[in-house]
Amino acid sequence: MIEYKAFRIELADKIAHVVINRPEKVNAMNADFWSEIVEIFRWIDETDEVRVVVLSGEGKHFSSGIDLQLLAQAASELGKDVGRNAERLRRKILSLQASFNAVDLCRKPVIAAIHGYCLGGAIDLISACDMRYCTEDAQFSIREIDMGMAADVGTLQRLPRIIGDGMMRELAYTGRTIEGEEARSIGLVNRTYADQAALLDGVFALAREIAEKSPVAIRGTKEMIRYMRDHRVDDGLEYIATWNAAMLQSADLKVAMAAHMSKQKPDFAD
Amino acid sequence: MIEYKAFRIELADKIAHVVINRPEKVNAMNADFWSEIVEIFRWIDETDEVRVVVLSGEGKHFSSGIDLQLLAQAASELGKDVGRNAERLRRKILSLQASFNAVDLCRKPVIAAIHGYCLGGAIDLISACDMRYCTEDAQFSIREIDMGMAADVGTLQRLPRIIGDGMMRELAYTGRTIEGEEARSIGLVNRTYADQAALLDGVFALAREIAEKSPVAIRGTKEMIRYMRDHRVDDGLEYIATWNAAMLQSADLKVAMAAHMSKQKPDFAD
Amino acid sequence: MIEYKAFRIELADKIAHVVINRPEKVNAMNADFWSEIVEIFRWIDETDEVRVVVLSGEGKHFSSGIDLQLLAQAASELGKDVGRNAERLRRKILSLQASFNAVDLCRKPVIAAIHGYCLGGAIDLISACDMRYCTEDAQFSIREIDMGMAADVGTLQRLPRIIGDGMMRELAYTGRTIEGEEARSIGLVNRTYADQAALLDGVFALAREIAEKSPVAIRGTKEMIRYMRDHRVDDGLEYIATWNAAMLQSADLKVAMAAHMSKQKPDFAD
Amino acid sequence: MIEYKAFRIELADKIAHVVINRPEKVNAMNADFWSEIVEIFRWIDETDEVRVVVLSGEGKHFSSGIDLQLLAQAASELGKDVGRNAERLRRKILSLQASFNAVDLCRKPVIAAIHGYCLGGAIDLISACDMRYCTEDAQFSIREIDMGMAADVGTLQRLPRIIGDGMMRELAYTGRTIEGEEARSIGLVNRTYADQAALLDGVFALAREIAEKSPVAIRGTKEMIRYMRDHRVDDGLEYIATWNAAMLQSADLKVAMAAHMSKQKPDFAD
Amino acid sequence: MIEYKAFRIELADKIAHVVINRPEKVNAMNADFWSEIVEIFRWIDETDEVRVVVLSGEGKHFSSGIDLQLLAQAASELGKDVGRNAERLRRKILSLQASFNAVDLCRKPVIAAIHGYCLGGAIDLISACDMRYCTEDAQFSIREIDMGMAADVGTLQRLPRIIGDGMMRELAYTGRTIEGEEARSIGLVNRTYADQAALLDGVFALAREIAEKSPVAIRGTKEMIRYMRDHRVDDGLEYIATWNAAMLQSADLKVAMAAHMSKQKPDFAD
Amino acid sequence: MIEYKAFRIELADKIAHVVINRPEKVNAMNADFWSEIVEIFRWIDETDEVRVVVLSGEGKHFSSGIDLQLLAQAASELGKDVGRNAERLRRKILSLQASFNAVDLCRKPVIAAIHGYCLGGAIDLISACDMRYCTEDAQFSIREIDMGMAADVGTLQRLPRIIGDGMMRELAYTGRTIEGEEARSIGLVNRTYADQAALLDGVFALAREIAEKSPVAIRGTKEMIRYMRDHRVDDGLEYIATWNAAMLQSADLKVAMAAHMSKQKPDFAD
Repeated sequence: MIEYKAFRIELADKIAHVVINRPEKVNAMNADFWSEIVEIFRWIDETDEVRVVVLSGEGKHFSSGIDLQLLAQAASELGKDVGRNAERLRRKILSLQASFNAVDLCRKPVIAAIHGYCLGGAIDLISACDMRYCTEDAQFSIREIDMGMAADVGTLQRLPRIIGDGMMRELAYTGRTIEGEEARSIGLVNRTYADQAALLDGVFALAREIAEKSPVAIRGTKEMIRYMRDHRVDDGLEYIATWNAAMLQSADLKVAMAAHMSKQKPDFAD
Repeated sequence: MIEYKAFRIELADKIAHVVINRPEKVNAMNADFWSEIVEIFRWIDETDEVRVVVLSGEGKHFSSGIDLQLLAQAASELGKDVGRNAERLRRKILSLQASFNAVDLCRKPVIAAIHGYCLGGAIDLISACDMRYCTEDAQFSIREIDMGMAADVGTLQRLPRIIGDGMMRELAYTGRTIEGEEARSIGLVNRTYADQAALLDGVFALAREIAEKSPVAIRGTKEMIRYMRDHRVDDGLEYIATWNAAMLQSADLKVAMAAHMSKQKPDFAD
Repeated sequence: MIEYKAFRIELADKIAHVVINRPEKVNAMNADFWSEIVEIFRWIDETDEVRVVVLSGEGKHFSSGIDLQLLAQAASELGKDVGRNAERLRRKILSLQASFNAVDLCRKPVIAAIHGYCLGGAIDLISACDMRYCTEDAQFSIREIDMGMAADVGTLQRLPRIIGDGMMRELAYTGRTIEGEEARSIGLVNRTYADQAALLDGVFALAREIAEKSPVAIRGTKEMIRYMRDHRVDDGLEYIATWNAAMLQSADLKVAMAAHMSKQKPDFAD
Repeated sequence: MIEYKAFRIELADKIAHVVINRPEKVNAMNADFWSEIVEIFRWIDETDEVRVVVLSGEGKHFSSGIDLQLLAQAASELGKDVGRNAERLRRKILSLQASFNAVDLCRKPVIAAIHGYCLGGAIDLISACDMRYCTEDAQFSIREIDMGMAADVGTLQRLPRIIGDGMMRELAYTGRTIEGEEARSIGLVNRTYADQAALLDGVFALAREIAEKSPVAIRGTKEMIRYMRDHRVDDGLEYIATWNAAMLQSADLKVAMAAHMSKQKPDFAD
Repeated sequence: MIEYKAFRIELADKIAHVVINRPEKVNAMNADFWSEIVEIFRWIDETDEVRVVVLSGEGKHFSSGIDLQLLAQAASELGKDVGRNAERLRRKILSLQASFNAVDLCRKPVIAAIHGYCLGGAIDLISACDMRYCTEDAQFSIREIDMGMAADVGTLQRLPRIIGDGMMRELAYTGRTIEGEEARSIGLVNRTYADQAALLDGVFALAREIAEKSPVAIRGTKEMIRYMRDHRVDDGLEYIATWNAAMLQSADLKVAMAAHMSKQKPDFAD
Repeated sequence: MIEYKAFRIELADKIAHVVINRPEKVNAMNADFWSEIVEIFRWIDETDEVRVVVLSGEGKHFSSGIDLQLLAQAASELGKDVGRNAERLRRKILSLQASFNAVDLCRKPVIAAIHGYCLGGAIDLISACDMRYCTEDAQFSIREIDMGMAADVGTLQRLPRIIGDGMMRELAYTGRTIEGEEARSIGLVNRTYADQAALLDGVFALAREIAEKSPVAIRGTKEMIRYMRDHRVDDGLEYIATWNAAMLQSADLKVAMAAHMSKQKPDFAD
């Protein structure tokens, strides 16, 4: 187990469990949070042993979003010149975005397990994960609209690819809170569970299943789906052909084939 | 209240209610319709007092689509040279498209409230709105296929971003009529209501809620969602960072924060 | 009826029924399959009489995907130099992709009627069709992950445009099998049927309906929906305007209009 | 001859000569300029008789760029809220850009004939023209950098497609003045002339040559070159195929062919 | 030596010399030309022994462009319905484009050696080659404008990437003939030679030089330059990283390194 | 002056002079080089005092490109599985690319001053700079082709935007060495100088000129030119409008205007 200031990491069965760990602050995202998450996902990316990531929150809630003190501090650092303030703010926003890009670009699948509040910045975060699962009483809200601003660390950019356009706009304009079942029906989460224990059971079972697959194949699959979010079908076909030109020479295909023939579970190298 | 030939406009509570007003012609879209809608949405865009738009149809139906007389007239204006006819038709189509682009590009959210027929050109129109709500007995049909043509003022361009690809093709190839509940299940509308009175109640309640938010935040949110329909995630992140570089210096954040602290409703300037 | 080695074609009522015809091999996709499908869809594209295509599988299943012998053979053809192998593999993959591109780019709508197994390469194939319908007990699985590879003939490229992003990743990472009803609920198929007889009845009724529409209008509609999968809304609007500049001068509009006036069925030339 | 406040238009031999006509202000671009240019180019676009446009400046210079009074006025209209100011400025810039987009999107070729100063906004303007020709002593400077701003009405957007990247940056960062011969060597103008009389002679000879070509062919050619500035080669090929599907049915091909056979000059309808 | 109807092929020193061989018709591009060129470049692509291609014309000229009889025949095949004609023409144009796409997409570098006339379709052809060299008295003209049409088999699509925007438009609007030296100064050709003998000497020397390089490296280089014509820098960087992931495992790097150390010429496998 | 292992930095007059400082190794790019350059450009980006960067090489040459020992070491780290090797190589290449992306994305203009050898990786490096200037006897060569590989850290991606397509291919396929004057004539450098002393004089004069401009305006200008390398004109216009919405509220415009009125040099804050 590795302890960070805003997180706790557990590694077992090739699964890294990343827990947001500021329960006394409803897991609000403070300065530690934004810098540590980059470090953590760099470590995950470089650690061959980790094949899948589960992301959850300690305590009663997943996360209440960005820590308001962080915003207050950013505001206090502004000077008199609007142009230079703009440049400073622009770079600050790009830096916060980079924290969640680290999740999006991670080569291993990242599964979000959500219970309780998932508000504002927390929606930006889960939009950068591969898949989302939640408890029935989870509460989701694009809270930024009530802070007088347009969401700028990923919700407005990634969520329209995940849920339908019409409902996306309703939720973004109103900040309306939705619960688990509605989240599932619009495609925000893949499945709901009765409570957090069942949620973690379900999500870890899924994670174990993915961890047993060929890591070469999983990474290629993730890269391709990510690529298709922003590219044309013909470009995607050309890209996978180039990618698989190398990867189909990997031993994993033979391991998989042998396992298939012998009706046994394949065992892939990290 | 402002009267146009094909529309009637009511402005109250910062909400502009745009009513298609040719009930005796099932609100068919005639020449007045196509030119007035541009004027109306230019006025909406420039009028700070208007924060949200509700679009509905007078009488028993939302709209039966383009007025067939308009098509007949366009046909009668063609000459002998296929090339010059093609150029004329191309410019005519671009001009009709511009009428609905005015809706799509309007800086304020546009909510369509649909009852009765919503056929052909009416589908093109609601595809350019932000969100759609309807009565249970509303009837939707991509009618262009039965006029021997591919829809060219927005349905085939915008609807695939709103509903799923597979059902999009079924509806476009067959012109099959669907009603409220099916429209909701495929994501064409966000919600259905028992009748038109309930529909307008629901839609105006939603409009009032949006009208109370920071107009700076609402416009930024709309611009970003529109932008993401056609751009990459990385471009979207860079664009919002540049946008918010200015907008986060607005007073609206302080107003929102103060209201949040004092548990009161914020009051944002137009 | 035309007999191929891996297919059987029936043409009636302007509908080409393309049947994968290797039931003794669970319709596995062998070398004949990959080359004949290109020929067949070229013929379909060039034969004016064909207006719609129905694609189904002979025997108990739609198809179990790529023939493993084909993979084994490709592996056996590799030499010692990794670079030259990569080039050979890349070209082989591009060539397999071309077989399904022939389906995707076919100017006539292609309807997949799926029963039984639809595994691995079969998912790539139906992702290239316009619409999908299945029996309740059909079984779908992105089987490539269990062969130690990322799917490279279309599933990862086309399916994310058809089903939601979150479920796409779950299915691609796990290879989990889903049946008819779940396939429908995530948008993979438009409708399910109790058994294969009902499925074919339903699909042929749909095909007949489409076959009666103006072929000029159907092709324009298909081209536009295909175009929008990869292009911006503004580009799509410009493209349809250019397309319809010619097509609105077709006789089909007059035929449609006359039929509309006389309340009779229009009869369009091939 | 048509007189505007900031322009004078002469129409002869199917050539519209658009003259910036504020010589006493070095043809600085005032409010009249920005609105009239839109009107003028709309008229050009809609007037079949006009086949080519020549754009030049009255008096000793082409133009000194934007009128500084206009900037001062825009500054004076700003209020206290940075966010609302930003929105106002953004819309103002978009509106100024629209004036030069009208030149860029004009269906007829626009030839700029430049003598004397061509500074700041004037570079933005000629970047939106099809071709540029100048006197040897013409003086070009991307003057915006000395006004403390990045050029925002077209220079930074269109000029990099016209001149080389390395020299583009040098000129934009320094605002260095270059004369005719250097302008020609970097591709900014196609040719230089000894003085303004020779320049206009040369440019009008070119304009007459273009005016004698098939207007259908010229418009198609311009549209394609404009399209290729921003699109892929494969998209461009598909677009021209769709475009020419109609245009090759024009009488102009037969007129051209007949003229070719009889060795006479073809005479194309407007 | 292989004889085709419209071509003659010579293969020596790993260089395929493709000669357009209808000197009595000024190498006009007839039906044989358009179909054989596809066959030839497929053979080149698949023949490992061929590493470079030189393309030239037999007789006094490179080529006068498309055979007018071909156009006349296409015109004679049109029927009465404008829409169906448009569809036929569109497919015909796409088919002609495919002939030159075969040149553009060929994995081996293609060098055009041009003398005498290079008109209309011949410009489309050389725009699809990698590099162009010519005699001083070669004559280039975008002749399509004088046939009343916009060039549709590649000139307007590929040439703007090769020569500057301003001169591109002048040549396309006027059809003006330019000779060798001007062609060189605008970047259309890389170098001029005094006469055809010197031209072929120079071009074959260049071809031999390229033929001695690693074929794996040459193909990767060509693919990347082609890719960058239509893609973003960041996409290009990602693509080459994926490509070289396999190709850097080739033996060619070791061969090159060993040759470098021993100061000898490397000898690469086909 | 700051000393790194592979570099030396001098800061004066708001200009950072970055000198590659391994003259005994012909400034070959070793492991220190690739990591330190990222650090250095991060420092430049964050240090307000630095407004412009000059990049040059110590000793007789600019740089001979990547250190061959680095390549040898990368090769020695590969294992047995082709797939895992491919993944490792891909990430290694992406990491090297990131070093030059740091130059490309730096917010301040970077001027390369080149003398002597500029080979292989050095071409990749200068392609990421804003502008290039050289001595007459500078020698440029895309040396990667002679190492049996396609250039993968920027040359093939960025250079085609800087020099013409035809010459780009000739240089990339042959690795031919060109000197200063030819480099200038194809647009690779903006200007040549007689020797290194004159080169540095010229380049520092240019750097001082840029350093005196408004830093807000310079950064906006650089961002826009960079943006246009990969985006459409309409997107570029929208982006600059959004950018300038904030930046035109900067004090720098007033400083510039006041200086203009008083005919004095403006003095802009960092």
